[in-house]
Amino acid sequence: LSARRATTLGSSIGSRALATAKPLDVFQPRHVGPDKNDQAEMLRTIGYDSLESMTAAIVPEDIRSSGQELEGVPDPLAEMDAMNELRSIALKNKLMRSMIGQGYYETKTPAPILRNMLENPAWYTAYTPYQSEISQGRLEMLLNFQTVVSSLTGMEIANCSLLDEGSSAAEAMNMCFALSRQKRPKFFVAEDCFPQTIGCVQTRGESAGVEIIVGDPAKLLDGSAGVSMEEICGALIQYPNVYGSLGGNHTVFADALHNAGAYLVVAADLMACTVAKPPGEFGADMVVGSAQRFGVPMFYGGPHAGFMSARDSLKRLMPGRIIGASVDSQGNRALRMALQTREQFIRREKATSNICTAQALLANVAAAYAVYHGPEGLRRIGAAMHENARGVTRAAEKLGLTPMHKDGFFDSVTLRTDSADALLDAALRRGINLARLGPDLVGINIDELFSETDARNLIAAMAETTGAGEDAKAQAEAAFFSEDPADNDVAVPFPRQSAFMEHPVFNRYHSETKLLRYLSSLERRDITLRESMIPLGSCTMKLNAASELMPISWPEFAGMHPFCPPDQAAGYTEMIGQLNGWITSITGFAAVSTQPNSGATGEYAGLLCIKAYHESRGESHRNICLIPNSAHGTNPASAVMCGMKVIGVKNDENGNIDVADFDAKVEKHSANLAALMITYPSTYGKYERGVKQLIDKVHEHGGQVYLDGANLNAQLGLTSPGYIGADVCHANSHKSFAIPHGGGGPGVGPIGVAEHLAPFLPGHMVQPSSGEGRNTQAKSNGAVAAAPYGSAGILPITWMFFRMLGKPGMKEVSQVAMLNANYIAKRLESTYTILFREDGLCAHEFIIDFSYLKKDGKGLTETDVAKRLTDYGFHSPTTSWPVHYSLMVEPTESESKEECDRFVDAMLAIHEEIQEVIDGRADPDDNVLKNAPHTAEMIMEDEWTHAYSRKKAAFPLPTINNQSKFWPVVSRVDNVTGDRNLVCSCPTVEELSE
Amino acid sequence: LSARRATTLGSSIGSRALATAKPLDVFQPRHVGPDKNDQAEMLRTIGYDSLESMTAAIVPEDIRSSGQELEGVPDPLAEMDAMNELRSIALKNKLMRSMIGQGYYETKTPAPILRNMLENPAWYTAYTPYQSEISQGRLEMLLNFQTVVSSLTGMEIANCSLLDEGSSAAEAMNMCFALSRQKRPKFFVAEDCFPQTIGCVQTRGESAGVEIIVGDPAKLLDGSAGVSMEEICGALIQYPNVYGSLGGNHTVFADALHNAGAYLVVAADLMACTVAKPPGEFGADMVVGSAQRFGVPMFYGGPHAGFMSARDSLKRLMPGRIIGASVDSQGNRALRMALQTREQFIRREKATSNICTAQALLANVAAAYAVYHGPEGLRRIGAAMHENARGVTRAAEKLGLTPMHKDGFFDSVTLRTDSADALLDAALRRGINLARLGPDLVGINIDELFSETDARNLIAAMAETTGAGEDAKAQAEAAFFSEDPADNDVAVPFPRQSAFMEHPVFNRYHSETKLLRYLSSLERRDITLRESMIPLGSCTMKLNAASELMPISWPEFAGMHPFCPPDQAAGYTEMIGQLNGWITSITGFAAVSTQPNSGATGEYAGLLCIKAYHESRGESHRNICLIPNSAHGTNPASAVMCGMKVIGVKNDENGNIDVADFDAKVEKHSANLAALMITYPSTYGKYERGVKQLIDKVHEHGGQVYLDGANLNAQLGLTSPGYIGADVCHANSHKSFAIPHGGGGPGVGPIGVAEHLAPFLPGHMVQPSSGEGRNTQAKSNGAVAAAPYGSAGILPITWMFFRMLGKPGMKEVSQVAMLNANYIAKRLESTYTILFREDGLCAHEFIIDFSYLKKDGKGLTETDVAKRLTDYGFHSPTTSWPVHYSLMVEPTESESKEECDRFVDAMLAIHEEIQEVIDGRADPDDNVLKNAPHTAEMIMEDEWTHAYSRKKAAFPLPTINNQSKFWPVVSRVDNVTGDRNLVCSCPTVEELSE
Repeated sequence: LSARRATTLGSSIGSRALATAKPLDVFQPRHVGPDKNDQAEMLRTIGYDSLESMTAAIVPEDIRSSGQELEGVPDPLAEMDAMNELRSIALKNKLMRSMIGQGYYETKTPAPILRNMLENPAWYTAYTPYQSEISQGRLEMLLNFQTVVSSLTGMEIANCSLLDEGSSAAEAMNMCFALSRQKRPKFFVAEDCFPQTIGCVQTRGESAGVEIIVGDPAKLLDGSAGVSMEEICGALIQYPNVYGSLGGNHTVFADALHNAGAYLVVAADLMACTVAKPPGEFGADMVVGSAQRFGVPMFYGGPHAGFMSARDSLKRLMPGRIIGASVDSQGNRALRMALQTREQFIRREKATSNICTAQALLANVAAAYAVYHGPEGLRRIGAAMHENARGVTRAAEKLGLTPMHKDGFFDSVTLRTDSADALLDAALRRGINLARLGPDLVGINIDELFSETDARNLIAAMAETTGAGEDAKAQAEAAFFSEDPADNDVAVPFPRQSAFMEHPVFNRYHSETKLLRYLSSLERRDITLRESMIPLGSCTMKLNAASELMPISWPEFAGMHPFCPPDQAAGYTEMIGQLNGWITSITGFAAVSTQPNSGATGEYAGLLCIKAYHESRGESHRNICLIPNSAHGTNPASAVMCGMKVIGVKNDENGNIDVADFDAKVEKHSANLAALMITYPSTYGKYERGVKQLIDKVHEHGGQVYLDGANLNAQLGLTSPGYIGADVCHANSHKSFAIPHGGGGPGVGPIGVAEHLAPFLPGHMVQPSSGEGRNTQAKSNGAVAAAPYGSAGILPITWMFFRMLGKPGMKEVSQVAMLNANYIAKRLESTYTILFREDGLCAHEFIIDFSYLKKDGKGLTETDVAKRLTDYGFHSPTTSWPVHYSLMVEPTESESKEECDRFVDAMLAIHEEIQEVIDGRADPDDNVLKNAPHTAEMIMEDEWTHAYSRKKAAFPLPTINNQSKFWPVVSRVDNVTGDRNLVCSCPTVEELSE
Repeated sequence: LSARRATTLGSSIGSRALATAKPLDVFQPRHVGPDKNDQAEMLRTIGYDSLESMTAAIVPEDIRSSGQELEGVPDPLAEMDAMNELRSIALKNKLMRSMIGQGYYETKTPAPILRNMLENPAWYTAYTPYQSEISQGRLEMLLNFQTVVSSLTGMEIANCSLLDEGSSAAEAMNMCFALSRQKRPKFFVAEDCFPQTIGCVQTRGESAGVEIIVGDPAKLLDGSAGVSMEEICGALIQYPNVYGSLGGNHTVFADALHNAGAYLVVAADLMACTVAKPPGEFGADMVVGSAQRFGVPMFYGGPHAGFMSARDSLKRLMPGRIIGASVDSQGNRALRMALQTREQFIRREKATSNICTAQALLANVAAAYAVYHGPEGLRRIGAAMHENARGVTRAAEKLGLTPMHKDGFFDSVTLRTDSADALLDAALRRGINLARLGPDLVGINIDELFSETDARNLIAAMAETTGAGEDAKAQAEAAFFSEDPADNDVAVPFPRQSAFMEHPVFNRYHSETKLLRYLSSLERRDITLRESMIPLGSCTMKLNAASELMPISWPEFAGMHPFCPPDQAAGYTEMIGQLNGWITSITGFAAVSTQPNSGATGEYAGLLCIKAYHESRGESHRNICLIPNSAHGTNPASAVMCGMKVIGVKNDENGNIDVADFDAKVEKHSANLAALMITYPSTYGKYERGVKQLIDKVHEHGGQVYLDGANLNAQLGLTSPGYIGADVCHANSHKSFAIPHGGGGPGVGPIGVAEHLAPFLPGHMVQPSSGEGRNTQAKSNGAVAAAPYGSAGILPITWMFFRMLGKPGMKEVSQVAMLNANYIAKRLESTYTILFREDGLCAHEFIIDFSYLKKDGKGLTETDVAKRLTDYGFHSPTTSWPVHYSLMVEPTESESKEECDRFVDAMLAIHEEIQEVIDGRADPDDNVLKNAPHTAEMIMEDEWTHAYSRKKAAFPLPTINNQSKFWPVVSRVDNVTGDRNLVCSCPTVEELSE
């Protein structure tokens, strides 16, 4: 027995004067991986004596600021103090019972899903499942989501989420336009769609040159709409519509559109599809919508999973990600993202959608909700909503109010009354928010939670409004609570006759124990930030701290409807206002909008500002957008979406912009130059020299400069887009500001703009913007997202990040991000070729060259290296981007020296394995790299035919042992087979029993 | 591509009348595993047509109630409604800033520990780590806990938690008594110990026949205490004491005790040990205390991890569990519980402690807190507390208040003032609770969270009390915030000079990312309820629902001090009052106490009631306790603790109590008969016939009947201890009422008593009981736990369980628990021998006989079966208890038919594997059973020397595949080696580098 009695002298106690009553739970050393000792050692390795001297060598002097970006950033608060401050802000929100509806509904997130998925880092810290072998858990849940959507909407195929309902509708409009081969630049939108949906489609139509005609579908059908069906590429209707009506016989409308060569898009409510005929059964070509009410909190507007389903024939036009089934190298079923070219490999100038980050985490929550309730449970929920809505109609009639629809609605009742204000007010005094839908129209949505108390309160409010006596009120209550079966039957005009969600996965996990184990079994299949660093270049997979994530579950944030009366949302207004101020400061700009709910949407919104600015100066002809060839694929796609023409700019052999080519193109397009889009530090992970000159030159020629903020994490407190001279940039809050990637979303992409662009920030039709920094000239249009503040519900994460790190923390974030990258690069540089560094230094990420494998690697590729890393327990770096035959490594500041070293050790070991193949010591076709990753089942085959040992395959280093081993559940996934034979929904009973 | 367009007719929609506005998120079908269809199929299998008919066949008619136990149980509420109702109760608690101290301190649970451990089912649903191979994660964290305790207290060995500080002190007293070979029935307790600690020691002393002398240690030393050191077995002092003083030179006191052959017990504050000399360095033989302030919320008194550390020579006397290092079959380091005989195998009549369930979950939280802060962080916290306390002293003096100690304190300041009431009131009006320590004494504790605001508020309250002017107040503030180094030095009388916690584990995980990965890596090593059923007979590992667990994190429950003014705890009073009423009803008793914080403490408390009852009737000579030989080991231990003499009663060959033996013994001991202790349904898992007759007979002979409620889960709504005729029983809320096992605690063991015993329920010295059901005659003594309501902080779990299941749910719980057990037994009965069933039926658990292996099993044992189950992904059932050579299976109601079938399949496959050995088809020494469990490293050895295949070893059924495989991280653990060479702390740097 070794007693733990140490005898060395206690360190500094007795000789140190601490200031009193100072907070102890300081966040900065919790967020930043290497402690001061490790930092010193790492700095020695790369040859610098301090972070400051290293920074000075990396950041070019002409753009190095004196730190004024930090002036508007707060001083740091300790973890608990920051939470308390945010709590006091949250409590300024007044939480009411929302019956507003209009696309946002109260819903019950089942407790096991809340705790084990939404609040679980195993789900929210995951990356987009590019590396299928270590993503099978979340891929399965996303496949469930697709199946829920396609099955409920009655369509053949669905994607695994879009950003929100409004942008999904815009994407569908865009597909219709593409289907017309861009020959029909008109799109019809039913006037009874949600206004925020109309707004998003209008913004997109305007930017893409498609005229949006808002009108009555009946008139379109009878030819009196002022536009013919032959002129339009498609039409959008809402089901049920803004007033709650499911409408008439849509088949007639669909047939007419089809006969005219146009397409029908239906914005549908998934829950309505449990009881009413699904759009797929009345002729829809595409169905869009939001899965929010499947267990996702309202979050003051987002994040929620938008969705799109479609006919099978449209699958290759569909934006966003599609999960498909394929096989692995052993012939076992394996999932992966299908048709991946749509992603980082977007076909640039040809792209028509820039969607990239979507809403994976929220799609997963919605899918889990569907798994937990199953088809019978969902139908019970849908039927109850409908029955309760019918009860409200009956009660309203008894009280002398006039329901707009006596029949043919699902869950929303619209009352026509001269006393609309009085009714809203009477409800409000009972804690209920109703919807104001017109001068004499009040909307009442009945959700999953509608209770007896709700019914009584609602009836009391209606009775008060109409001045009904106690008798009438009692009659109204009796009418509501009628047990007459005739009153309680589901009575939608076209009831759903078809079964849905019959797949086993939706019919197995209805007890909490079963659900918990299902979620847990999926969780164990994936590598997330809980398991290892995820050194993805350009993706910045940093710590998502528990203290940052916790506030998003607070009811005062999670439970707010985006269209509630603004005075109820004072807490949100304050929080967003502060956050905007901080982002404004750190980016060096004059105003910020948080509406964009992804980085790509930020690009789109920023370019729209530039476009509007040119137009305001009478220069609407400016339509050339210069983009370096090394840019993110979303850059050209966003420019195309804004109707710009993309001109590529070459890079030189050092990865810098080819100045000669740049100069030539600026001059050539001087008259029409709209914008330059650059990423800084560049996509090659470097602080490119001379950026100021490039920017100045663009300005000289009348252009504006868009700075892609993907690499903002290397700039914090050292320089800024504004300081460099850019006019607009987006920040990826999910990269730089601690919002988790969620397995492929949510993202948040706030944009900052210089003073002259501030008036052109996006507005909103329903809730004119407020609290949006300098954007006080409330625009009523130009929305790029359905909700006024986009994904408002996760902004508390970024708020906490700023508030806890404060001035000194923000700066150390960038400095250590660069230290970690340079440390790893240094340790690898004698073994691998590191591309594009400047004076031997990268910024916060770097590229390892594997092009030598092309020549003499005997068939090995960088993909083999990526997959082999899984055997070592790592998530691969970014592969083959931004240059072919490479891996791009970004450790982020949150990784410790120890973890960086572990990664280096793995990379060095893999280099030796490559060398074995090159030298002929290993078989070129049968080696640890080509066969990677190795599953347990592969390892335990009785017949071991490989020249290498089982141990070498799965436990290649002494540090990889029983305790630390991560086993992938599938081996190398075959992408070609999967794309050739696209299977995008869950297996059926029959398929499972095969 | 298979489109998911189903064409079958939707089930019942359109023809069903649902009542309106009824809640949809009903809990009962989420809690109960098999749905109605599965239940019907399972009933068919066992030959019954309904749960009712099955129940009628199991529960003897003479004790089958008509369900009146459910009358006092509420109707069920939907999940969200129940949470809302509990929330409204919680909000009746007034959350103040607590500076009360006295053993309960505000502390910051680091957010990543809160989220990823305390709120994570991977930690809280685990069972006690008997099966070491699938418990290495939590075993490591418990070893960390032991190391923290032994290192900080300066002792050689520590256990991995006791129930609380008060009972730990009582256990230490008991050890001293044992060390005196029971020759010195006197124990000295310093009068400046915490009163609740004195109370617990007194209760225990009284029951064990040890006189507790409360006095001044100085007088004991100088011989004026009325008792000599030679008479006492030991002495307890508190460090720092109730007034905050660290005291003088304790070495003199210790030496004197040792010279007199007595032992020194120190109740110590772990945090004080970071800056002041630890008890191990001034001669303590045992150190006890609470680890609460290491990140565990105050929880209105519990649960918190009590601890005990001691000299190495005392290790075999130490109560509770000790984790030790050993090796596995492959020679790798492996952890397990050492000296296991102390557990279920307690040596019955010889036992002197009944401790069983402890506080593993809370010990783990405290250990994680120490891991996260490390020695430097802890020292910083300790130093800050001390410096802030010195500041408060300085400020108080400036304001004319008199600190009791100007020096020699750690974190608590006691002020002597004539205006104690005024000071308490002035603080209260500023939201601060202080401690009232005497007519003119006010205690102020300075905790980890003490902030500038706290300091200013406190100074303002003091200034108001003394009527100080603004100048004096300003001077006081200046004194507090003094930056004079002399003022800020740590100035304890005996500063700690020795280093502590130098082990690598405490010096590695200080960033959140590192901590998260460490916790996650431990989590992956264990089988918990997230992975599989844990079919442990007598342990009832049922669902711990997220909705039940969530409320314990609410600040209004978690943040309350147990000694706060009672009016601040109105929410707790209401919640506990309701819960007591429900438990009273379901157990058929008249009154309930929730003070016992484990089942064993419940036994102890219940027997104390019986003892007091006999005494009240002048029958204090009654001291015989009859206990069947099949009883839980804790039963005789509890009886011994109460000074009773245990007489065993035989069981017949059917597992029933041998009536002849019983009759003989009752009659023989009639005059002295104190009690009969029985478990019902019996420990053999059966509804033994004739229990009423046994009970009547005991009553006839003047005895009382204690019913062990371990198997209460089979009785709910069907019968009850009260209905059967027992006088007292405990309920294991962590078995029957959904509190998670937490990897070995917390437990809660409320006791119910019949009317005549109600006046004898435990009271409390500090807070006389209130809200304890019928126990309104507030006793001021007899405490069995440190806190008035024991582990009050987790009672919301049980509240939610009752509130969501309600009358119908409670009954189905028991019925399906029995259905599941009988279903599995039925499916296994043709392959295995099932012991002791009655008419082919068991109750909620059953025993599989493996005694046949003894005869012809070629060396195989039931342990091999238990370990082999791990290869199949299961946690083993209870082994070798209550009969040798057996496994006892209890599936609980939460397991689904599917999971029951999966277990049966594994057991049937194992039977075939056994048969292979018996038949000579497999080697008796080298077979899948003897070598189980198989780790991945074993499977991948290049040299495979076994006659069976790798696949058979690790993937023995088709359902066990890459997706589902659980890999144990160690192979069979060698217990003998570990006990022979006890290593009970973390490895050091040197050991790790060997």
